[in-house]
Amino acid sequence: MEQPHQSAGPEAGKPPLRVGMVGYAFMGAAHSQGWRTAGRVFDLPRRPVLAVLCGRDPFAVRSAADRHGWAATETDWRALIARDDVDLVDICTPGDSHAEIATAALAAGKHVLCEKPLANSVEEALAMAAAAEAAYERGQLAMVGFNYRRVPATALARRMVADGRLGALRHVRVTYLQDWLVDREFPLTWRLRRELAGSGSLGDLGAHIVDLAQHLSGERLAGVSALTETFVRRRPLPGGPTSGLSAASAGGIGTVTVDDAALFTGRFASGALASFEATRFATGRKNALRLELNGERGSLAFDLERLNELWYHDGTEPGTHAGFRRILVTEPDHPYLDAWWPPGHALGYEHTFVHQIRDLVHAVAEGRAPQPSFADGLQVQRVLAAVEESAAKNSVYTPIAG
Amino acid sequence: MEQPHQSAGPEAGKPPLRVGMVGYAFMGAAHSQGWRTAGRVFDLPRRPVLAVLCGRDPFAVRSAADRHGWAATETDWRALIARDDVDLVDICTPGDSHAEIATAALAAGKHVLCEKPLANSVEEALAMAAAAEAAYERGQLAMVGFNYRRVPATALARRMVADGRLGALRHVRVTYLQDWLVDREFPLTWRLRRELAGSGSLGDLGAHIVDLAQHLSGERLAGVSALTETFVRRRPLPGGPTSGLSAASAGGIGTVTVDDAALFTGRFASGALASFEATRFATGRKNALRLELNGERGSLAFDLERLNELWYHDGTEPGTHAGFRRILVTEPDHPYLDAWWPPGHALGYEHTFVHQIRDLVHAVAEGRAPQPSFADGLQVQRVLAAVEESAAKNSVYTPIAG
Amino acid sequence: MEQPHQSAGPEAGKPPLRVGMVGYAFMGAAHSQGWRTAGRVFDLPRRPVLAVLCGRDPFAVRSAADRHGWAATETDWRALIARDDVDLVDICTPGDSHAEIATAALAAGKHVLCEKPLANSVEEALAMAAAAEAAYERGQLAMVGFNYRRVPATALARRMVADGRLGALRHVRVTYLQDWLVDREFPLTWRLRRELAGSGSLGDLGAHIVDLAQHLSGERLAGVSALTETFVRRRPLPGGPTSGLSAASAGGIGTVTVDDAALFTGRFASGALASFEATRFATGRKNALRLELNGERGSLAFDLERLNELWYHDGTEPGTHAGFRRILVTEPDHPYLDAWWPPGHALGYEHTFVHQIRDLVHAVAEGRAPQPSFADGLQVQRVLAAVEESAAKNSVYTPIAG
Amino acid sequence: MEQPHQSAGPEAGKPPLRVGMVGYAFMGAAHSQGWRTAGRVFDLPRRPVLAVLCGRDPFAVRSAADRHGWAATETDWRALIARDDVDLVDICTPGDSHAEIATAALAAGKHVLCEKPLANSVEEALAMAAAAEAAYERGQLAMVGFNYRRVPATALARRMVADGRLGALRHVRVTYLQDWLVDREFPLTWRLRRELAGSGSLGDLGAHIVDLAQHLSGERLAGVSALTETFVRRRPLPGGPTSGLSAASAGGIGTVTVDDAALFTGRFASGALASFEATRFATGRKNALRLELNGERGSLAFDLERLNELWYHDGTEPGTHAGFRRILVTEPDHPYLDAWWPPGHALGYEHTFVHQIRDLVHAVAEGRAPQPSFADGLQVQRVLAAVEESAAKNSVYTPIAG
Repeated sequence: MEQPHQSAGPEAGKPPLRVGMVGYAFMGAAHSQGWRTAGRVFDLPRRPVLAVLCGRDPFAVRSAADRHGWAATETDWRALIARDDVDLVDICTPGDSHAEIATAALAAGKHVLCEKPLANSVEEALAMAAAAEAAYERGQLAMVGFNYRRVPATALARRMVADGRLGALRHVRVTYLQDWLVDREFPLTWRLRRELAGSGSLGDLGAHIVDLAQHLSGERLAGVSALTETFVRRRPLPGGPTSGLSAASAGGIGTVTVDDAALFTGRFASGALASFEATRFATGRKNALRLELNGERGSLAFDLERLNELWYHDGTEPGTHAGFRRILVTEPDHPYLDAWWPPGHALGYEHTFVHQIRDLVHAVAEGRAPQPSFADGLQVQRVLAAVEESAAKNSVYTPIAG
Repeated sequence: MEQPHQSAGPEAGKPPLRVGMVGYAFMGAAHSQGWRTAGRVFDLPRRPVLAVLCGRDPFAVRSAADRHGWAATETDWRALIARDDVDLVDICTPGDSHAEIATAALAAGKHVLCEKPLANSVEEALAMAAAAEAAYERGQLAMVGFNYRRVPATALARRMVADGRLGALRHVRVTYLQDWLVDREFPLTWRLRRELAGSGSLGDLGAHIVDLAQHLSGERLAGVSALTETFVRRRPLPGGPTSGLSAASAGGIGTVTVDDAALFTGRFASGALASFEATRFATGRKNALRLELNGERGSLAFDLERLNELWYHDGTEPGTHAGFRRILVTEPDHPYLDAWWPPGHALGYEHTFVHQIRDLVHAVAEGRAPQPSFADGLQVQRVLAAVEESAAKNSVYTPIAG
Repeated sequence: MEQPHQSAGPEAGKPPLRVGMVGYAFMGAAHSQGWRTAGRVFDLPRRPVLAVLCGRDPFAVRSAADRHGWAATETDWRALIARDDVDLVDICTPGDSHAEIATAALAAGKHVLCEKPLANSVEEALAMAAAAEAAYERGQLAMVGFNYRRVPATALARRMVADGRLGALRHVRVTYLQDWLVDREFPLTWRLRRELAGSGSLGDLGAHIVDLAQHLSGERLAGVSALTETFVRRRPLPGGPTSGLSAASAGGIGTVTVDDAALFTGRFASGALASFEATRFATGRKNALRLELNGERGSLAFDLERLNELWYHDGTEPGTHAGFRRILVTEPDHPYLDAWWPPGHALGYEHTFVHQIRDLVHAVAEGRAPQPSFADGLQVQRVLAAVEESAAKNSVYTPIAG
Repeated sequence: MEQPHQSAGPEAGKPPLRVGMVGYAFMGAAHSQGWRTAGRVFDLPRRPVLAVLCGRDPFAVRSAADRHGWAATETDWRALIARDDVDLVDICTPGDSHAEIATAALAAGKHVLCEKPLANSVEEALAMAAAAEAAYERGQLAMVGFNYRRVPATALARRMVADGRLGALRHVRVTYLQDWLVDREFPLTWRLRRELAGSGSLGDLGAHIVDLAQHLSGERLAGVSALTETFVRRRPLPGGPTSGLSAASAGGIGTVTVDDAALFTGRFASGALASFEATRFATGRKNALRLELNGERGSLAFDLERLNELWYHDGTEPGTHAGFRRILVTEPDHPYLDAWWPPGHALGYEHTFVHQIRDLVHAVAEGRAPQPSFADGLQVQRVLAAVEESAAKNSVYTPIAG
């Protein structure tokens, strides 16, 4: 016979954290997985509740809610943030609506999780960061979704840098290579339109690598010099709804108004050098976010296509037995790993969203500001703006404002 | 305002599949993740319901049920299989109880999913296979949990072999290397005791690679020649409950009664040669299930520590441009991948359990026998028995019975 | 009994090509190996003769000549080029003396092989290219030693690009990472002094990757934007003779007058983008010349630390089975490989010098201009000058002159 | 003007070591490269002289002598060993003539270097080892050419094992995979005929890996259990002279009388387990000699296709930062490397022969027995014989005699 429900399971007796999410495409699916799973794996101080999902099409949003496990739906984000039964608003829409939704949600007294990039312009990001700062005074928290900070391997890298294992930093090089635009017939989805996406590979991929480079190094970029390019300027118009990453064409031709690739070099405040490349034209590279940091005492390297591995060179060892070592980041004392599987059992992409929720729920419960903050998102936005300014000014070295 | 619940989401209107699970340690957590997630990602014909979790300790099982999302609990597996509100019994206990629970559950009219290895002996496995065959006549299904068949990369490998891309098979070589017993102070958990675990690395790791080798090649082993070894025969007794893979010691010394490592060679019916190695003493190897198949027209290679990759050599290409290529198995037309993330976004270990549930639910809904069947599990058991027999008889080549 | 010397061996009856070499440090040893070995492996139309070695210290040059197999010695390069028994002058000195020796040797009627970089300035390189052009009219040949064109893998890459396997080029990214200056106590050898070396990582490593990028792509750079840095500006003075790459310190401190690292981006005439990084501060990277080319139809990747491998992605294949393949460039129909060992038997660094001599001897015998020409060396020099100019002008995009 | 020959170069004033070599195919070319180059790179105590090359066809041997740099030729090996001007006989013929030539050369007072495998049978090897032992009493040395001991990475591995870095040895696994027999039309060269080659993959590839496994572990195999197979039993007869590894067919069909593949497991005296696989049917694998050693304190791994790398896992480190590290074996304090290029500059296959000559010349000069000795070669032969015996006796475990 069934036991009475007497014991203290992870869910029992915990205060709920009621979430309302806006958007349910690629990022919405990933965030849903995070909200559903975090409390099953980690001991959380509050119990996430998938309360309301919001989208414009009533039938589509209902179907998505059923699929992803959301209890209720809304078709207007203003209605969502007005609800009393929502504690936190999770924004998974394209970048052009982030500022409006986030500032409104903060004004309505909600905590906010906002997908990256924080905004489509520095102006928007400034307003959001100011709103977040004001809200923090009222006890509300705001976080931006740079999920790649929460790959266990990158989190371990951050820890090792903070522990001084790299010493004085000399080089950071990061590329984020994809290839889904190589085909000239790929249609003009919203991700290729400046008015919706803000920018192309720069905001989508470049934002990730700028954030990671600054986060891992613990330093801010002082200035950049940049080149951008749009290799294919005319593309077929898409037919029907598109997810941004895939679509069928409907006939007609339109103009791509964002960059296909962005290359930039930069200097950190400490004098370390950085190089960045973001592109959707690297044939055969699917999700190749590759980074390397070289310091006076050691080096670290990472590739998102092999996300369970961190490569470490200890420069203080005798050269005879030194070499880049492949740390399989699946040990119990690695970040986030105590809650998962035994050593050697791989995690995947979506785990970053589970970890993001874990950390956010802890921050909410403890009332401390989560990272990355909106101020961090603003700083990334400033770097992207400087990249665009440099690219427009013949690549001249452009200091980061702020 | 919330929309009425009018649309046909994936959950709505589907007949439930009510699951009772026995055991909640490592495998129980993994299976729970599978049951919770499969219907969120795939369009399933039936809706999995995490109905009842069973374990001997009432408080511990209640806590686990809360954690993993099971509605009710039982403390006696006999009570579980007697319940009317359970359609399928999922067995995640050590191997010594598989036969008894599975045959009882089948007799009680339930479908059964049983963790690998199917049993601790051929005799048990024979009874289970017979029970499954009889149950199938009554419309009940039985499946054994060789989850590594459902890594997208191994599923793709199977498809490529079936498509004839390897031609006449020459070699299959598989190793499964772990290192968690290297430390002589690691205590004597249940996995090191023959009466509970049946065997050591052989049943735990060897069962996986025997199943994979036969599944991928589409052939059965005809005979084997084997060596087994127990490197560390005396170990400290464990204190308190152990998960099998980790434990603290309580004082006292006991004798290891299973193998630490098993090496065997074999022949397939077609004349292809096979080599196998299973060990828990490969220092630095955490979960290195590595396999390679060489055929007259091509080769395939796989490493579980990089489970999103399949390496393929097309032997029919001109040598000038030929080479082993790294297929990143994350494309929409790869097995299971249409339901997950965009290309290049990695999956992890636990996804194999999601896929296992997906396939099992489809089989149940359609009334067809799922794979791997109990007969497949029995065949693996026969191979393991032949390995032990050969090892006991001076490695003499021992045909596989049956 | 010994056979009379009647047969036509590769050496017999071939006209000699008498070589005089200036310099006998690292590059001199490598070139000697090339001159000694080329005719033993390849069927050459002329027989290389290691006639005269030139160096300033009479005892040291005699010892080096004995070691490396040179018949005679000189202590003044002017005496060397005045000799009647020298057909070709091979210049292995630091870059500051290339222009003077090369132009004098050409004026004296000799063929010339000159180590890279061609010169320490565009002015010198212009004079050398003009001298080479004039000499060519008189039947004399001049070649610059960008030996990395002659790694079989890079030669295969060039062939594949020329065959159209990449289609429209989108990206070229190249890094050349070393770490021998990470130690702040490494002394101030000639390679760290502008008056001798011309520049630092830029001329030493950057020259190689600029040449390779242009050679492999078959395109010229149109302009660059650059950052350079000297991380460690004060170093101990060396004691005694140094080889440039290693030295003991003698006491005293001096100022480094060259760059430690150079990063630059650029555009090819076709619109393809390029990124370059040359550094001696990449801890743990010993000789990591890594390049990748992405084109509309395919991609290629190479790493000098694994120089027998070329990675190729065929973008025209269905995605299902596509991936970067590792071509082991040791097949008989790969460049230079028909003369070496069976498939899978690796070549090394010094083989590039053997191949360089092979190609040069063929060019001399056939009277055609070898590649890379002094004009190619001049073009690289122009790029390096533009890099320095851009770095000095706040990274502004700087067109390549000429 | 040329300097007088006054200095003490490495060649000057050293006693010559006059070599007569029998055979000039693949191995002859490789040994010639070794003899020509060793004294140019290393400081040798004696000066190798390529005195006489011996082969049956007078024109062909003369041509080969010209190509490879041998001063004189012979057409009868008996004449060669009778010459007064030969100090050392280097045997590069197929295995069926090793015993006769080697024992005669030793009887004639020569030092001997004999290619592997030492012989085609234990009986022959016994006679050779006895002859070598007797000759050693007279001051003559004998060495067998297991050149893979002299890859710098394997030599470093040996040093690390000897230093105790692996602790108690648990596993040795070695494969040697090639694919040149996959094509059923490949003709029946001498390597496929038992009367000439002794065995197939076993003697050719298996001999290498048995020697390496014993050498690196510092232990001898106690017994083996084996399977062998000939996948393609009928092949076209070759036309014209063949090198063993390549040939054209002349028409007619013959029977392959050697193994295509050999798999065996074994036990070392210490209780460590070993597994071996040698095959010429591993499609896509060209020269994949891969080995791994697992010990209680660490592990080592190596792949001949990437021969400049040794992978090392230090099991005594904390797991947090542990991993297999890639040691690029090109540092000055790595074996043989002080004489070659700067760090990161790769060596190749043929360097093993240069190192072999280096070590042999030192042994000769110092009068100490070189390794591997004929006794080592005999031990390998005993293992190969036990493999064949086990394979013939249903894989029963077969102790190594002797």
